[in-house]
Amino acid sequence: MAAPVPRTEEQGGGKMAVPKGFPKLKNDTFLRAARGEETEYTPVWCMRQAGRFLPEFHEIRGSQDFFTTCRSPKLCCELTLQPLRRFPLDAAIIFSDILVVPQAITLTRHSLEGKVPLIGFSGAPWTLMSYMIEGGGSTTMAKAKSWLYRHPEASHRLLRLLADVIIDYLVGQVAAGAQALQLFESHAGHLGPQLFQDFALPYIRDIAQAVKSKLKEEALPLVPMIIFAKDAHYALRDLAHAGYEVVGLDWTIRPQEARAQVGKDVTLQGNLDPCALYAPKEKIGELVKKMLESFGTQRYIANLGHGIYPDMNPEHVGAFVEAVHAHSRHINKHS
Amino acid sequence: MAAPVPRTEEQGGGKMAVPKGFPKLKNDTFLRAARGEETEYTPVWCMRQAGRFLPEFHEIRGSQDFFTTCRSPKLCCELTLQPLRRFPLDAAIIFSDILVVPQAITLTRHSLEGKVPLIGFSGAPWTLMSYMIEGGGSTTMAKAKSWLYRHPEASHRLLRLLADVIIDYLVGQVAAGAQALQLFESHAGHLGPQLFQDFALPYIRDIAQAVKSKLKEEALPLVPMIIFAKDAHYALRDLAHAGYEVVGLDWTIRPQEARAQVGKDVTLQGNLDPCALYAPKEKIGELVKKMLESFGTQRYIANLGHGIYPDMNPEHVGAFVEAVHAHSRHINKHS
Repeated sequence: MAAPVPRTEEQGGGKMAVPKGFPKLKNDTFLRAARGEETEYTPVWCMRQAGRFLPEFHEIRGSQDFFTTCRSPKLCCELTLQPLRRFPLDAAIIFSDILVVPQAITLTRHSLEGKVPLIGFSGAPWTLMSYMIEGGGSTTMAKAKSWLYRHPEASHRLLRLLADVIIDYLVGQVAAGAQALQLFESHAGHLGPQLFQDFALPYIRDIAQAVKSKLKEEALPLVPMIIFAKDAHYALRDLAHAGYEVVGLDWTIRPQEARAQVGKDVTLQGNLDPCALYAPKEKIGELVKKMLESFGTQRYIANLGHGIYPDMNPEHVGAFVEAVHAHSRHINKHS
Repeated sequence: MAAPVPRTEEQGGGKMAVPKGFPKLKNDTFLRAARGEETEYTPVWCMRQAGRFLPEFHEIRGSQDFFTTCRSPKLCCELTLQPLRRFPLDAAIIFSDILVVPQAITLTRHSLEGKVPLIGFSGAPWTLMSYMIEGGGSTTMAKAKSWLYRHPEASHRLLRLLADVIIDYLVGQVAAGAQALQLFESHAGHLGPQLFQDFALPYIRDIAQAVKSKLKEEALPLVPMIIFAKDAHYALRDLAHAGYEVVGLDWTIRPQEARAQVGKDVTLQGNLDPCALYAPKEKIGELVKKMLESFGTQRYIANLGHGIYPDMNPEHVGAFVEAVHAHSRHINKHS
């Protein structure tokens, strides 16, 4: 199997023009949890919280396609803020796609008025490569995986190229105002231990290291970074040492086993089965209570184990968010 | 969460008419491995070995649809035998679907001429329920999972009904000549630990227990049973104690970790990444060698971690089968 391609020295660049004068942050619970500091309650946000399950999302987006929407900073800003108006979430995540220029972020950071921190994100190299090769969804990712087995060197060159783009993209997001970054390796589960180690992990590691060193170089804030590798149960130990402050978990992983594997030095994020939001609200409360008791309220950011689905009831998302706050405050008070 | 529905006492029945005079089995390596007995080499078969990757499969099936094909014992028999003519596989698996009547099996068992044992199979209750509710494939199984969360009692009634049908179906397969049985819980990965424990595991356990007790009652052979719960990494310990002689593994599970979790009393089956068959033949040999060194050659049945895909090269399937035989004989000789 070919070795991962090392990063070449960066070409020129120099300091970026960084927007200043952002509103003061009022709720830093999410950031403190990410850094492993004490929090009075467990912060919560939801993957895909800016999304199709909200009626107001459809009103704003109207008939525009995804890419047109993503190219408008004003629309991205509005869609990012929508869930914050409904639910007392502890973080916003920019409504966007890999292709979007960072000015969306600056406008949104201002519009958030310091209410909660703003998370930027990107797909990870293997996930982007698999979308590129499959040209859409696939249940097996067989075409993309076939490349890894048949053309390992070419695969590494493509992954290296994608990693370099992602590094610049993430640094650009921080320059534009992102206060945390999440890397999504959504298609990790298709790989298995060996392919993940050969074709995903080296680039995931390198992205954390390179983003941090560029942030220092550019005198930008050293924001916490989250790695979410869906279905990568077999790689939790490695992910805990990949240079990220937070490891995101899908819902197939037991909280205690995750903590045993990652150790004490990272914050965990996740991992309620998104389909639990179909349950009656009282049941959601019970499941959240159990989840908090298993993870503990510290070094922990509550979230779903995957994104919210379009047919989910916004009231149930609200019940989830409120249950996290209520139960974690209750546990903290009595411990 | 509602409790699983217990099985009601069986209604009538009585001894089945069992076909006799099957040819004597010449290669029982697969059965010995399943029972934990010593084997001189590691037996191997492939999930979906009777399938679309073979040109002769298309010649025989022609333009007939799947269900028409499944209803013809003669066609099922021919399709089941096809891979055996090409590759020195150690087991045949009936080409069939859950709906098929067992006479296919009797004809095939005769036509196999005792070359290798014949495996019968069924989908497990949750997997069948999810197909029923989704009405086809789904990346999230959200509709079916929504039932588990919103209508737990009704879900348990449906699962109980399906389990009862599966029990009779599997016993019927043994009566017709099946020499081993595999239960496929293909959609286990969508459940996660809690839903699996509530809605899948109780029925998986019950099926093993009920099939065995019915086989005894009917004085039928106590054939070994295999449970393959795809992406159920979180449930390996439970599956090892669910009453099955063999636990099948998908390719995301490390061999040594699987063995550490299941203990010494079950045989493991699996788990080469099916996409590894896209690799050059030498690379397949290397991967098989590594797999055999990790699993060991005993209490082990080599297989893929999922079915063969239709675009795979039959020669590479052959390379896989031959590599298992060659490397395991080599390891046994030198240990």
